[in-house]
Amino acid sequence: MKNIYIIGIGLIGGSLALDIKKLNPEVVIYGIDNNPEHLEEALSQKLIDHKAELRNIEKADLVILSIPVDAAVKLLPTILDQVSDTGLVIDVGSTKSDICKVVANHPKRRNFLATHPISGTEFSGPKAAIYNLFQNKTNIICEVEETAFKLQEKALKLFTDIGMRIRYMKPESHDKHIAYMSHLSHISSFMLGKTVIDQEKNERDIFDMAGSGFESTVRLAKSSPEMWTPIFEQNKTNVIKTLEEYINNLTQFKSLMERDDFEAIYMEMKNTNYIKQILNGIA
Amino acid sequence: MKNIYIIGIGLIGGSLALDIKKLNPEVVIYGIDNNPEHLEEALSQKLIDHKAELRNIEKADLVILSIPVDAAVKLLPTILDQVSDTGLVIDVGSTKSDICKVVANHPKRRNFLATHPISGTEFSGPKAAIYNLFQNKTNIICEVEETAFKLQEKALKLFTDIGMRIRYMKPESHDKHIAYMSHLSHISSFMLGKTVIDQEKNERDIFDMAGSGFESTVRLAKSSPEMWTPIFEQNKTNVIKTLEEYINNLTQFKSLMERDDFEAIYMEMKNTNYIKQILNGIA
Repeated sequence: MKNIYIIGIGLIGGSLALDIKKLNPEVVIYGIDNNPEHLEEALSQKLIDHKAELRNIEKADLVILSIPVDAAVKLLPTILDQVSDTGLVIDVGSTKSDICKVVANHPKRRNFLATHPISGTEFSGPKAAIYNLFQNKTNIICEVEETAFKLQEKALKLFTDIGMRIRYMKPESHDKHIAYMSHLSHISSFMLGKTVIDQEKNERDIFDMAGSGFESTVRLAKSSPEMWTPIFEQNKTNVIKTLEEYINNLTQFKSLMERDDFEAIYMEMKNTNYIKQILNGIA
Repeated sequence: MKNIYIIGIGLIGGSLALDIKKLNPEVVIYGIDNNPEHLEEALSQKLIDHKAELRNIEKADLVILSIPVDAAVKLLPTILDQVSDTGLVIDVGSTKSDICKVVANHPKRRNFLATHPISGTEFSGPKAAIYNLFQNKTNIICEVEETAFKLQEKALKLFTDIGMRIRYMKPESHDKHIAYMSHLSHISSFMLGKTVIDQEKNERDIFDMAGSGFESTVRLAKSSPEMWTPIFEQNKTNVIKTLEEYINNLTQFKSLMERDDFEAIYMEMKNTNYIKQILNGIA
């Protein structure tokens, strides 16, 4: 791999650039971004070696597509049209069904690998890029058998080099489960933030009462709406189902409180403490 | 201060013991706990110097009451009965109305100070005790004017010595606002954990998909049901109100998704990003 093109130099694209360059100082990293300020920042922070444009990607050994998922679905076919026969294109979006569908019958489908590195922070843009973001994190790869064997190998080497463990899933299965494990968390956090702001915005002193517990549960409410709106749109059916279940559980908890059934409230929490064992498995 | 009695040697009581002993090696710390194993652990971890019993507290210069809030409300009048005229009793519970009410007319009301150090982790018991837990955290003090001036002074010195900033509030105001800033976060986290466990408990592999975002929003679901059940019970009216508002916001978010109004979804998130400015104020 010599020429790497990263389309979208934000948190994920920029952090991949940092790790790749550290491991392979000889590669040349080209940045493409429709935000000129981000592109300048990426240059001055040395995330990328050069600015580039889409028409240059025929020279690419690797194209990383790290833009919001609606833009990714629109752009991927054009990218595949232009990439060379030996070029590998990977996307890193948080939804996988639509992106796999849009290129299912593309003549260069075998040049594409659908991935979702489960890693990030609540920050965005090139300034948010950091080293070792992917260390010990999981990368979900979808429809691996649709990608050319040599290009699979190239991608796997890259991901294991930056410290990721790999899991293989079908796109539909990915989207269903990630709704529970990630998308619902974001909505619960955004709506918690909204509830508190609605009530407390005129009482600034009150925020002195916020402890680390509040900070932790509301952290994801700092996330980028530009990135998350199209994720919720693409994964609408699954997300609505998780939201219904979540609202039902909250409503049931409220009813138990209204009925003064604090024994049941205790048991609800005791049973949910089981999450400890589950989280112990997370790095 | 020479003799300090800590009733309930868990996360908060134990961490207070560590900081107090570090700052004042000459004090003697006595531990009282109805869990004999916790008491032995507290001794072997050197959180306390000696085990003690309730009838010993007449010797106390300071009594710290750090037990679940239902037990605290029951026990506080008896403690005040027994404490000497110069002894200070403080509680550290997460609700403040009931505890203030129960001693409102107690002849030794002036020996008591109601506090809520907003500090903690999702862990509990003496093993969870750590140094510097209270550094740069807020301590809410209620009805300060009901406490004897010299004992106020003693308590303030202790809290500022361990690094806390002090805020004064009425108990009713504390309980109303803490429902938003802490109690609701715990329920949102517990119910998020429940929703995911209900769906995914038979698919252990799925938890490989959990990232730091899920971990952050579900962290409080590890909290102790023994501690949290009586908090929700004592603060029932306020907590139910916050839950109603939270459920309404989630339901509205779901309706917007069902109507494909992703412009409104975007604006909901954009407006809630305001939480960034708020959280910047939190240490």
